[in-house]
Amino acid sequence: MRILTRDLKNQIGHQVTMQGWLHKKRLLGGLTFINLRDRGGVVQAVIDNKDEVEKLRGMQIGSIIELKGKVVEEPRAPGGAELHEVSVEVLVPVTDESPIEIDKPLSHKSENLDTLFDYRPIGLRNLNETKIFKIRAEILKSIREYLAENDFTEINTPKIVAGAAEGGAEVFKLDYFGQEATLAQSPQLYKQMMVGVFERVFEIGPAFRAELSATTRHVSEVTMLDVEIGFINNQEDILKFLEGLIYSVLTDIYDKHSDDLKKLGAPELKLKENFPRYSMAEIHEMFSKATGKDVSNEIDLTPEEEKWICEYAKKHDGCEAVFATGLPASKMKFYHMKGDNDTALSADLLFRGVEISTAPQREHRLDVLLEQMKEAGIDPSAPGFAAYVSAFRHGLPAHGGFGLGIDRLCEKVINLANVKEAILFPRDINRLNP
Amino acid sequence: MRILTRDLKNQIGHQVTMQGWLHKKRLLGGLTFINLRDRGGVVQAVIDNKDEVEKLRGMQIGSIIELKGKVVEEPRAPGGAELHEVSVEVLVPVTDESPIEIDKPLSHKSENLDTLFDYRPIGLRNLNETKIFKIRAEILKSIREYLAENDFTEINTPKIVAGAAEGGAEVFKLDYFGQEATLAQSPQLYKQMMVGVFERVFEIGPAFRAELSATTRHVSEVTMLDVEIGFINNQEDILKFLEGLIYSVLTDIYDKHSDDLKKLGAPELKLKENFPRYSMAEIHEMFSKATGKDVSNEIDLTPEEEKWICEYAKKHDGCEAVFATGLPASKMKFYHMKGDNDTALSADLLFRGVEISTAPQREHRLDVLLEQMKEAGIDPSAPGFAAYVSAFRHGLPAHGGFGLGIDRLCEKVINLANVKEAILFPRDINRLNP
Repeated sequence: MRILTRDLKNQIGHQVTMQGWLHKKRLLGGLTFINLRDRGGVVQAVIDNKDEVEKLRGMQIGSIIELKGKVVEEPRAPGGAELHEVSVEVLVPVTDESPIEIDKPLSHKSENLDTLFDYRPIGLRNLNETKIFKIRAEILKSIREYLAENDFTEINTPKIVAGAAEGGAEVFKLDYFGQEATLAQSPQLYKQMMVGVFERVFEIGPAFRAELSATTRHVSEVTMLDVEIGFINNQEDILKFLEGLIYSVLTDIYDKHSDDLKKLGAPELKLKENFPRYSMAEIHEMFSKATGKDVSNEIDLTPEEEKWICEYAKKHDGCEAVFATGLPASKMKFYHMKGDNDTALSADLLFRGVEISTAPQREHRLDVLLEQMKEAGIDPSAPGFAAYVSAFRHGLPAHGGFGLGIDRLCEKVINLANVKEAILFPRDINRLNP
Repeated sequence: MRILTRDLKNQIGHQVTMQGWLHKKRLLGGLTFINLRDRGGVVQAVIDNKDEVEKLRGMQIGSIIELKGKVVEEPRAPGGAELHEVSVEVLVPVTDESPIEIDKPLSHKSENLDTLFDYRPIGLRNLNETKIFKIRAEILKSIREYLAENDFTEINTPKIVAGAAEGGAEVFKLDYFGQEATLAQSPQLYKQMMVGVFERVFEIGPAFRAELSATTRHVSEVTMLDVEIGFINNQEDILKFLEGLIYSVLTDIYDKHSDDLKKLGAPELKLKENFPRYSMAEIHEMFSKATGKDVSNEIDLTPEEEKWICEYAKKHDGCEAVFATGLPASKMKFYHMKGDNDTALSADLLFRGVEISTAPQREHRLDVLLEQMKEAGIDPSAPGFAAYVSAFRHGLPAHGGFGLGIDRLCEKVINLANVKEAILFPRDINRLNP
């Protein structure tokens, strides 16, 4: 039976069989030391028999091998054990040299990102890269558990759609059996319609944005969590739910993966159960006072202010997540609800210096919604909007929700420098491969 | 505090506040009976006060209402309780009549499917429709739990891709910043590459097929579960894993939702932990003997045989799921492994009369793979294939896996007549809306 690296510590003194990838090979004082990688990690094996060493001649990193040997306690080894008196069988020989060295941390410097992604299927075998995506998978799991506990229904909505929910720009178009269709930028309209059925819904799926911007930070395909909640009392209910979700998921991930997060360079997590809230006007004023820079004419927070308020809240409130409230109505989408004094009933959630979500109440009153659609130049009877409007015409309760980019969240949780590092196979204006 | 219908039985004798949709309204002997729908179900409320009845004048099905009243035990009511001495507040008035009656089961006859889907956002509010998608969400949850227990890592792979993994036909094409791209028909190549990183991976996401067929059964966007497993001993390991997954998920769903499944018309579940296996040759022979029809020249199972062998296995083996083995190599994709005697190392999983999955071992030997790509007319250095080949060049273990259509599985679990009934917003050659 095959034993995994992570189970070796229970096998001290026993003969075991292991299978995995040849991850490293070196000669030292007549002995051959190799590292075997499997899904549980890496183990060191010491080969002293010449015939066994000979089997590995010409075998490159990546070769699939089977090792039989005795498990020996070794406190300095990663799993607390290593393999001695080893016999080797090569299951799948690899004779080509690896295009990149994978047993050392890969460079994530921005000038090396192209190399990182060109060799992605191989580079991901580096243990640090693997950890990023193990943590990402755990984030997804933790999010789903929290939503299940809170009585949400998972939905799958179409990605090929007739209209453009977020307005017409920046969508990918395709020919759909002779009709023009677009790739969904978000499940916005669908999740609102589904409030009328399930009250509380979520979806985790791809979203597509044809942003022409060629900055290194834009990706054209992201994985989004979309949440929508019906029968709210007010916008505050959305903020409470969002902070509850983020608090629960991040503390869960930091509890379970503190060692890996430390190895990946993530800072300690500072979160309070209730995130501090500052209005945009307050942030403008505080930022001006602290930096001497005049931002009174800005209709939104500047990127510099977003960084600053997160640092401020970390220091003064002991919390790295902040809500920025009192956002201007001019930033609103047609489906958002207006608040008092030209504000939107919405708040931005900032975490570690950037906006990771926006949590608005939706306009659920048919007459006001139709008015806002008109102002936005949207025809309520157009394909893609008629069914949406019908859901309001036949009764939707007060509701709100949010989208949360999984890639972005993963980037900030691990403290990566670029969102693409948190995507297995990123897509941008210059990259469609691999 | 708002009380949900499903919690009423714990509130007998108490005053409660409920919110939901007006689901039904009728007058009987001077009393007004209404049904209130919320995410927990439907409750009946009896209104005897004329002023309260008056508030509902002109209010149509779908109106959002708040009821305050006393919970009274009523064994004949769905939740064992109803609401008496009720006062009403209309939160969101609906004055347009519902386009379809939603308090009675909706017709799923094939000639009525267009109506069903045209009014989807409203029709889904019918309790039976809601149940279908509650069960679908539970299937997804159950699948993920089984995969987590078995040490699989969830991955998200791109849906905008350069090549067509399954061969060139029937893909949606789009303009990707001036390059031609296609929508992924499956994560096939990506999940195989990721075996080299995580050994065991899965993804649940959309897949796109531009099938020109206008039959009522073809959908162009489906939700697929994709699974891939490394370090298998042989193809048998894949079959074992697949039957374990299906057995676990289906018995779980039938245990937890037997009442709902009965109401939806699903038959009892008959499954054994080990599914019976019949080779294609055996099925041909058995079928011919039983029906007198000659199928000896068929290179694959006919739809009639698929139905027949499922019925046979249900009767003789006590199991509605069957593996058909010994499939012809001519059915193989380039990435499948060949078996002996012109067969593929693959098996079809049939359930309730149709194929729901195919579980092949992959070809992991670089030289054989390159040969099979050549035979299939695929250039290994073409965009979309170069990185795939590199994963083999640098070591992939013996592996295999399967795809499983979530929509199809849901259809067969509930015994629906058409796969589209298990999709919230189906897409076919004639339907891009809603």
